[in-house]
Amino acid sequence: MKLHKIREEVKKELSNDRYEHTIRVYETAIELATLYDESVEKVSLAALLHDYAKCQTDRELKDNIEKHDLPRQLLHYNKELWHGPVAAMIAKKTFRITDVDTINAIYYHTTGREQMSNVELIVFVSDYIEPGRQFPGVEEVRQLAKVDLKKAARKVLQNTIIFLLKKDATIYPDTFLAYNELTNNLKE
Amino acid sequence: MKLHKIREEVKKELSNDRYEHTIRVYETAIELATLYDESVEKVSLAALLHDYAKCQTDRELKDNIEKHDLPRQLLHYNKELWHGPVAAMIAKKTFRITDVDTINAIYYHTTGREQMSNVELIVFVSDYIEPGRQFPGVEEVRQLAKVDLKKAARKVLQNTIIFLLKKDATIYPDTFLAYNELTNNLKE
Repeated sequence: MKLHKIREEVKKELSNDRYEHTIRVYETAIELATLYDESVEKVSLAALLHDYAKCQTDRELKDNIEKHDLPRQLLHYNKELWHGPVAAMIAKKTFRITDVDTINAIYYHTTGREQMSNVELIVFVSDYIEPGRQFPGVEEVRQLAKVDLKKAARKVLQNTIIFLLKKDATIYPDTFLAYNELTNNLKE
Repeated sequence: MKLHKIREEVKKELSNDRYEHTIRVYETAIELATLYDESVEKVSLAALLHDYAKCQTDRELKDNIEKHDLPRQLLHYNKELWHGPVAAMIAKKTFRITDVDTINAIYYHTTGREQMSNVELIVFVSDYIEPGRQFPGVEEVRQLAKVDLKKAARKVLQNTIIFLLKKDATIYPDTFLAYNELTNNLKE
């Protein structure tokens, strides 16, 4: 499926606000891919589809997780984490995307994971820094993203974990593992 | 070995400051054990011995971890985490302590872990709130400790993880698992 066709499908599926956020992530991801000499095609596809399941109801997301053999463990954590894996499944099954890197960038865009590729890091960071985002700490990540993708991603993880800790929410294991791995990586 | 004899041995092994901290943890732990109707004997022993290995050099701690089959994984994390498991090993081998609860309270007093017993929670929290401690947030934990041991321990874990994140340090898996488990537990 051509990119403009996917864009149309995404627009149909999402609310206006969510679609606009998606386009901003898409544009940010293309900028970063250019900067870091990574595949513009992969990050474009992943960014366009990363929130494809975001407007599904909790019921729909849960059904999708159960029907399509996604990790049941997800259901014991915050609902906010469900839409990435479901979107990755739809990207494979409906949009016939076969590139593993693109699929993983969609799958892990909320939680992160150990050993993220540059494509995954770009989508993960773009989702956090797209120009519509205004939370505390975002400007620091925008600056880091211009010079070091891993440092930027590590800062996103730090901010996210602190945000979750302060509201007494559990932390998905992949998020914590991603933070430890990047921290060890950046020490070397 | 009688308690006063252990106290003498601890005094010999530790610096003055460390010994005084130990005695404050011991007194705090006895107060909490009384409040929560837990074994004063267990918390006394665990509190007296929790920092027994704290004045060992990094080399000694590392050797002890390697020689006594303690998890090698420890060596990939902050050195601050090594003395608890080493002290637990000494408590078993030298002080002939056989009670698992007491040993675990010594072993996990820095990291915490999933499913801590009340004895473990008491030592873990006492180490954080003993009257010599003055870091930000300690007063909140002191108040929580009077009403809910799990909430107090969860707050210690939150503060500790935030402290580590802010200095770009890795987080030991047990610490993060303990936080998630207590958080789920407190939701129910």
